[in-house]
Amino acid sequence: MAATGLRRALSRQLCPTHRFCNGSWRNGSSMFKAADLQIEINKQPKVKPDNDSLVFGKSFTDHMLTVGWNSEKGWQRPHIKPFQNLSLHPASSALHYSVELFEGMKAFRGVDNKIRMFRPDLNMERMLRSTLRACLPAFDKLELLDCIRKLIEVDREWVPYSTSASLYIRPTFIGTEPSLGVSQSNHALLFVILGPVGPYFSTGSFNPISLIADPMYVRAWKGGVGDCKLGGNYGPTIYVQSEALKRGCQQVLWLYGEDHEITEVGTMNIFVYWNNEQGVLELLTPPLNGTILPGVTRQSLLDLGKKWGEFKVVERKLTLPDLIKGLQEKRVKEVFGAGTACVVCPINKILYCDQNYHIPTMENGPDLAKRFLKELTDIQYGRRPSDWTHLVT
Amino acid sequence: MAATGLRRALSRQLCPTHRFCNGSWRNGSSMFKAADLQIEINKQPKVKPDNDSLVFGKSFTDHMLTVGWNSEKGWQRPHIKPFQNLSLHPASSALHYSVELFEGMKAFRGVDNKIRMFRPDLNMERMLRSTLRACLPAFDKLELLDCIRKLIEVDREWVPYSTSASLYIRPTFIGTEPSLGVSQSNHALLFVILGPVGPYFSTGSFNPISLIADPMYVRAWKGGVGDCKLGGNYGPTIYVQSEALKRGCQQVLWLYGEDHEITEVGTMNIFVYWNNEQGVLELLTPPLNGTILPGVTRQSLLDLGKKWGEFKVVERKLTLPDLIKGLQEKRVKEVFGAGTACVVCPINKILYCDQNYHIPTMENGPDLAKRFLKELTDIQYGRRPSDWTHLVT
Repeated sequence: MAATGLRRALSRQLCPTHRFCNGSWRNGSSMFKAADLQIEINKQPKVKPDNDSLVFGKSFTDHMLTVGWNSEKGWQRPHIKPFQNLSLHPASSALHYSVELFEGMKAFRGVDNKIRMFRPDLNMERMLRSTLRACLPAFDKLELLDCIRKLIEVDREWVPYSTSASLYIRPTFIGTEPSLGVSQSNHALLFVILGPVGPYFSTGSFNPISLIADPMYVRAWKGGVGDCKLGGNYGPTIYVQSEALKRGCQQVLWLYGEDHEITEVGTMNIFVYWNNEQGVLELLTPPLNGTILPGVTRQSLLDLGKKWGEFKVVERKLTLPDLIKGLQEKRVKEVFGAGTACVVCPINKILYCDQNYHIPTMENGPDLAKRFLKELTDIQYGRRPSDWTHLVT
Repeated sequence: MAATGLRRALSRQLCPTHRFCNGSWRNGSSMFKAADLQIEINKQPKVKPDNDSLVFGKSFTDHMLTVGWNSEKGWQRPHIKPFQNLSLHPASSALHYSVELFEGMKAFRGVDNKIRMFRPDLNMERMLRSTLRACLPAFDKLELLDCIRKLIEVDREWVPYSTSASLYIRPTFIGTEPSLGVSQSNHALLFVILGPVGPYFSTGSFNPISLIADPMYVRAWKGGVGDCKLGGNYGPTIYVQSEALKRGCQQVLWLYGEDHEITEVGTMNIFVYWNNEQGVLELLTPPLNGTILPGVTRQSLLDLGKKWGEFKVVERKLTLPDLIKGLQEKRVKEVFGAGTACVVCPINKILYCDQNYHIPTMENGPDLAKRFLKELTDIQYGRRPSDWTHLVT
């Protein structure tokens, strides 16, 4: 993607701008720049793991990117340096008040040996939204992306030589304010770490998963921050996830409200491919109403579906009773999750009010989920040209 | 308070036990013990700040307590050591997924020069609840309290020689799992830092504050974790607090639901002292319904009010329109916040739907708020004997 194309892409909106986006672009005049990067090469590189033995998020590359900020001096120069522990004041606002946010994106080594990122402009945009909601200082999205590109270049040998693995990229931004008042951080640290990853779920990359839907647990709510990628949205899910496992399910289907609206699944967006009550074939996902994370994979499936024009593509509220009715009337073809870590993940069972509901996703191919997976991975691994990719090297 | 009395107190419940309290007491057999404390004295003690210049949470003592844990070896020995930065893996679960929780408590130097903590058993109990909700490993509440007592003893000269200042105690527990899957942390760090504090609000310790009540922001929700002291409940409030300041208010009055139920104020619980619709004089605070933090000061005001028996004491839902009706009918005497940092904090104005509502808290003394403040500080500073205090030295 040429620089102008990327700049244009970055000006698009993944979702409606919230009013806080007009907020404090603190020290806006002194954004850090990739041209100022200082690079210190790791002289003790690690042995790289086998692609076959990769567990999601456990292995990290030799380098990391860090950019410090404080309210007095603004952004410091960005650094690429050996992967190392962070030295943090014990009162740091990230550790007490969860002043923290992150992104998840991937780089792929293509069949042509070129390294590509997938729609990183959308991640940068969402990261800036999260940043402003967390009252952390704004940054220039293109400059950060350029720093990340440079980091991947330094660690390019860590991008797996494989079309079933990739390099996971974790931009993170934390408040390092060393005081205990609950207030805007005057100190902050943006950092990016990388690690080679295989499939996200231990059941493998395209095996179906089962979900528990228990209305007593709610992931996000209107008036909250469920539409931003803030750390506080994730920690509380771990207990619920452990409950899911205890009850024989692999992930949580998050419901909302009195009518048990379907919102997300685990850490993914959810899609339903069915004949709706009017008998129209459609691909449905819940709308971005403030409780839904605006996923990059979610947006990509919507974009692809609309481009193909073979079925209706809608963002609309769907309750679990609606879905169950569809199952009982045999109108449901596929239900799947979508996210950066797993790409597309078929769902074959929902446990709801002590009753198991089978979903015939696998019996139906799953044709659509497989087609999405193929289309996206073809783009990601360079088998199909697309302006959704951004060349690293 | 004698050890048996404290043990009995610890077995009481600050609020109903949630079902997760029956959860994983991982490595329950190897709780850390205060008897195993290793103490390394700081050889470069800092100059202590003047009591008059104390800003909440900005100054820390010479030592800290740390206790490490991992799933293989369980709890390590507790350490008291010089106050220092933490060295954390950049993938630590506290920094990405907000696997973190904290407590806030205080130690007071009494008029008899003895140092007392105030109802620390309730903080330990709440901390354990937060811990289990965060899927972090359980600890023995009495042993942790004993470690904290020892830490205060080491830093005893930091407990202000003043009856308007105190030593703030911040127990913190973070996940240090060095991997990016959203799952139970196999590594964790419990630490406690201390700092001398004056009044929490810059307007002083007993000046009234103004609140903004905007239903578009929601602090906590049913099915969430608003009743636990997890970091993720706090970060998102910073932006809303900055909105409050922009609109000329000092704190946020958090509403909930379609009928604009009153829940909390800033980082405090809220109390209304009024003649209710039946003309009965009562002290009211919202009930512990899952969206309310079970505050220690909250509990203490309820306990004192019931002990005095001079007015009705109730935990009941109250909507903002109900309160406004009470204001219009001149039934409201006082409205105030209650929390460890501020103790009791009078409220004199609420901005709601672009309209200012004056609350005659100050015009009414505020007799009750002042009485609570006097009663609590008399206990805390040793002017009145009470089994709510726990002697440090």
